[in-house]
Amino acid sequence: MRFRIESLGHHVPPHIQTAADLSARIGRSEEWILSRTGVAERRVSEEPMHIMAAHAARAALGDGPPPDLIINASLTPIQLIPDSSVFIQQALGTEGIPSFSVHATCLSFVVGMHTAGALLSAGAYERILLVSSEQGSVCRDFEHPESAALIGDAAAAAVLTRTPDDGDSELLAFGMTTWPQGASLAELRGCGTRKHPNDPDTSPGDNLFHMQGPRIYKMTVRRMVALYRQLLEEADLAPEDLDLVVPHQASGPGVAAIARFGGLEPAKVMNIVGEYGNCIAASIPLALQRAHAEGRIERGSTVLLLGMGAGLSVAGALLRW
Amino acid sequence: MRFRIESLGHHVPPHIQTAADLSARIGRSEEWILSRTGVAERRVSEEPMHIMAAHAARAALGDGPPPDLIINASLTPIQLIPDSSVFIQQALGTEGIPSFSVHATCLSFVVGMHTAGALLSAGAYERILLVSSEQGSVCRDFEHPESAALIGDAAAAAVLTRTPDDGDSELLAFGMTTWPQGASLAELRGCGTRKHPNDPDTSPGDNLFHMQGPRIYKMTVRRMVALYRQLLEEADLAPEDLDLVVPHQASGPGVAAIARFGGLEPAKVMNIVGEYGNCIAASIPLALQRAHAEGRIERGSTVLLLGMGAGLSVAGALLRW
Repeated sequence: MRFRIESLGHHVPPHIQTAADLSARIGRSEEWILSRTGVAERRVSEEPMHIMAAHAARAALGDGPPPDLIINASLTPIQLIPDSSVFIQQALGTEGIPSFSVHATCLSFVVGMHTAGALLSAGAYERILLVSSEQGSVCRDFEHPESAALIGDAAAAAVLTRTPDDGDSELLAFGMTTWPQGASLAELRGCGTRKHPNDPDTSPGDNLFHMQGPRIYKMTVRRMVALYRQLLEEADLAPEDLDLVVPHQASGPGVAAIARFGGLEPAKVMNIVGEYGNCIAASIPLALQRAHAEGRIERGSTVLLLGMGAGLSVAGALLRW
Repeated sequence: MRFRIESLGHHVPPHIQTAADLSARIGRSEEWILSRTGVAERRVSEEPMHIMAAHAARAALGDGPPPDLIINASLTPIQLIPDSSVFIQQALGTEGIPSFSVHATCLSFVVGMHTAGALLSAGAYERILLVSSEQGSVCRDFEHPESAALIGDAAAAAVLTRTPDDGDSELLAFGMTTWPQGASLAELRGCGTRKHPNDPDTSPGDNLFHMQGPRIYKMTVRRMVALYRQLLEEADLAPEDLDLVVPHQASGPGVAAIARFGGLEPAKVMNIVGEYGNCIAASIPLALQRAHAEGRIERGSTVLLLGMGAGLSVAGALLRW
């Protein structure tokens, strides 16, 4: 697929919650938080996801023309009906632009980018706004220290277009696999028909996020290594050909593992988890925006987006930028 | 885009709730229900959406090979995390197949089909399972007679592939517009961050579906007429060239309006709303499956899928079958 990310934008809420701030609330020391999750700071938003999304989208759109499609690629919804993409468009102050959501938990941006790329390649749209915005802090369960210490709020957006005739940007390889046997390893059991909010059997804990980090890690690593090798092989590349890997910022140990199994110097793996925590679907585009702003990616660079999400799914997209 | 719907499947739950059954519960007469909503019967499922989805998916897949992508195109989720597509795959008994959701409320199937078509056209996948399954009955508010009387449960699925070289199947035209000024006309305010289930300000009514039928109708009809004309113009077709229109089964009056503004004989507009009610995203594929089973669609037929959804959005897809 010949498409490119034309521009990126981001928004991080101003309020910083440090490991020290969180320590008393989750009954664990600052050292425990840092060693288990690697998250020194995370942002906590007072604005809902659609307002954060609009901040990030405006930064990505800049002075350019409006998009002809808006794809919301976020986990945390504003409400069940209508779709959150409508509220993002409302916050942007536009109307008439088709909008919908792609949902693959933490992998929503990667899957949304693949979807947007296919729609551009097929000539269905010309200029797609893809935005991931997460207010996951609302769903933290402070009785579950590990997951509560991981999550942070942020938004990031990308404008995607078809690659011009004289450009080299393209998707070199894409892969995804989903493994329902891991469905219970990262869960928010509420907010659907299984544990409807009005059902007396639904407990407050059902409406909060829980995960089993070590079991996820164990189930993921083998599948992610296989995917990583497959993507490189498909593109006929070696690890040293990669200019940058932008992984999902799942956790400090999770990001560190990428360089290890990938045969990469740590400097080639974007790591912002200590500063922002796990921002769910916004983690990958937030790290991508940072890398781009720092000049670590330019046209022609070989960039791998790689991640895992609840489900359990692993996915990766290898791009010539 | 050159893709085709290779096969279809459906599932309707066995339990029938008639207008007479519902009458006492919503404090309105059978006649009131029939004249306002046109829904004589609706199904109410005791099985959750992923089980219904698997029934429909198995029917669509038949003896064919497994899909290489599963797209869930439904409104009602099982739970917030992981994505409902994972539970559908779990119910199908498969593993490793990439899966995600496309969410555009009642238009999810139409948008999911467009997305799937683009992914097939781009060569990303070969055989996509697209499934819409709705247990909206769980979200009925019996204090809101009109919306409570509309909703029914059902599931339907389609297998999509690229059109073979000697085939004529293709997407002749597609259009969608989204109008956030209609965001409050069809709402379920809960199940997200705005009215989190654990927030003491969230009331039971926030977790149920409400709509303002007459205002939606007024806001929709002009936009749908414009879209209808645009799609025909793009494909260089006249209304009489359409073999069948498969509209969203929004309500009896809503479906009846299509023939009127479309300049079509009523027999050319699929109408199953009296029998099944508004099955949210499953309505269009359920009606499509019925039309196909009855021999009203065959290869080469010109078929228009047309609908509206909360948001407010209108969308249409004109297919050479």
